[in-house]
Amino acid sequence: MIPRHLGNRSLSIRSSKSGRSGTTSSTATSSPTHHRHRFSLTSLRNPGQPSPAKRLHRLIKTVNNLVAAHSSAARERVAIATQLSEWGEQTGDEAVSDVSDKVGVVLSELGEQEEAYAAALDDRSRTPLKAIRNTERSVQPSRDGKRRLADEIARLKAREPQSARLVTLEQELVRAEAEGLVAEAQLGNVTRQKLKEAYTAEFLATIERAEKQIILSRHGLRLLQLLDDTPIVPGDARPAYAHASQARQILNDAEDDLRNWRPGELLGDDVKSVVDRDSSMPLQEESKVNGKGKGKEVQVDGVGA
Amino acid sequence: MIPRHLGNRSLSIRSSKSGRSGTTSSTATSSPTHHRHRFSLTSLRNPGQPSPAKRLHRLIKTVNNLVAAHSSAARERVAIATQLSEWGEQTGDEAVSDVSDKVGVVLSELGEQEEAYAAALDDRSRTPLKAIRNTERSVQPSRDGKRRLADEIARLKAREPQSARLVTLEQELVRAEAEGLVAEAQLGNVTRQKLKEAYTAEFLATIERAEKQIILSRHGLRLLQLLDDTPIVPGDARPAYAHASQARQILNDAEDDLRNWRPGELLGDDVKSVVDRDSSMPLQEESKVNGKGKGKEVQVDGVGA
Repeated sequence: MIPRHLGNRSLSIRSSKSGRSGTTSSTATSSPTHHRHRFSLTSLRNPGQPSPAKRLHRLIKTVNNLVAAHSSAARERVAIATQLSEWGEQTGDEAVSDVSDKVGVVLSELGEQEEAYAAALDDRSRTPLKAIRNTERSVQPSRDGKRRLADEIARLKAREPQSARLVTLEQELVRAEAEGLVAEAQLGNVTRQKLKEAYTAEFLATIERAEKQIILSRHGLRLLQLLDDTPIVPGDARPAYAHASQARQILNDAEDDLRNWRPGELLGDDVKSVVDRDSSMPLQEESKVNGKGKGKEVQVDGVGA
Repeated sequence: MIPRHLGNRSLSIRSSKSGRSGTTSSTATSSPTHHRHRFSLTSLRNPGQPSPAKRLHRLIKTVNNLVAAHSSAARERVAIATQLSEWGEQTGDEAVSDVSDKVGVVLSELGEQEEAYAAALDDRSRTPLKAIRNTERSVQPSRDGKRRLADEIARLKAREPQSARLVTLEQELVRAEAEGLVAEAQLGNVTRQKLKEAYTAEFLATIERAEKQIILSRHGLRLLQLLDDTPIVPGDARPAYAHASQARQILNDAEDDLRNWRPGELLGDDVKSVVDRDSSMPLQEESKVNGKGKGKEVQVDGVGA
């Protein structure tokens, strides 16, 4: 919880190892052990920092794990729903049987919402991150080419300052620098747009799952109210269960509420403006930038990972 | 989604195999394959239905799996938070660096809420189910004893109708039936109370996670608005990032909102009354019932599973 970690925690989540800022963060120690181990092994093998593309590759893999965990939660929830309903039937108590069956329907829907959430993370959040990673990768050859040319020019100037090749190489370097300018601008643009897109989608998906699961849970609580749990004394019979039609009505209400759910209705105007902006991504402007450079090198819709 | 399965689905989740009602449910086919396999193997080995206690034992194991899946989602989310923040720092783009770090803090908190949810399911929902299962188990010897006595009486009546032992056995049967009445009343009371308690706790925990994750996601969306993703043309410099203090303020707002969250504020009065009732469980009445019978046989706070 944020309140327990007030100081550094609320300002940054970076571990002190990554270093530039030098702040220590309490979060570093709370991250899972195997991740911390992997970090230090990587830095032993490769004294430099991993490249942004490699970091993003790892991040995308962790998103895969997150998607798998939510999918698994969804499956277990649906299994529980069936098991609860079937157990309830076996108790031989009509009220328990009906309520457990209807609560099972609600639990099963909670599971379906969890599965929809996993699918949204996989599709709408992971895909833009892959676009950034692909651009990061495609920019690397341009950076390497420029560095190679500059190195060769420096070597030639020292050994054969009059070489005719110097003129050609310097022309090539000018072209490579122009290409590099475009590549870096593309990378910056793609990074900002896709980062915003990925986490806007993730937060919106989180809100959608939350709002729909609140709807379901509230109707689930209503169902449980139909179960009279006043203790009876031995030998007394329970009053007959008379809520079957109410229970069906609650499921109908839940269904109606889910069907009438619309994205963003509970959101403030500030947030809506983000959503509206991102659904009409400035495609013209993006292609304007790409049009001036080597647009085809930038794979925006990547596969893999 | 409910809307796709309107008919049978909204009325029952039971698979057609469990049979009493005879309705076919579309949910049966959507449950995970390995669970369906286990069901049919069980019924091959043991032609009768598994006992309620065994069904509940299996249900409690599935709840364990659900808890593990949500815990795993929580850990992956916290790992993603750190990886995102550290990647952002490496991009060398000050705006991306700051926003990714702050978004990471929000994601990490989403993960902590997921972990709190897993813990609540484990503790508040699974424990009452174990109480039911323990009572179901403890009632079984009383049922068996009664059946044994009745069988023996029937045998004696057929072979030695004048046997003096018949009188003793019939006295024992009367006592066993009294014990059985109490045991069944206890089981019925515990089943209803603990079923209601388990799923009230589960729905309330689901609402709590949802409301807190909505708070976090909304502030996360605000953070993303601070990232200017207007494309720039090659060679142009981006305007300097000037939102660091706003970003910090958003995290402070998120922290305040989480701290001020109170359970049930978004709930209607109907639901509040459930919560209030369950927090003051009718303990007196429960012990009144137990006091008349063999209360010590009923382990209400069980361990194991």
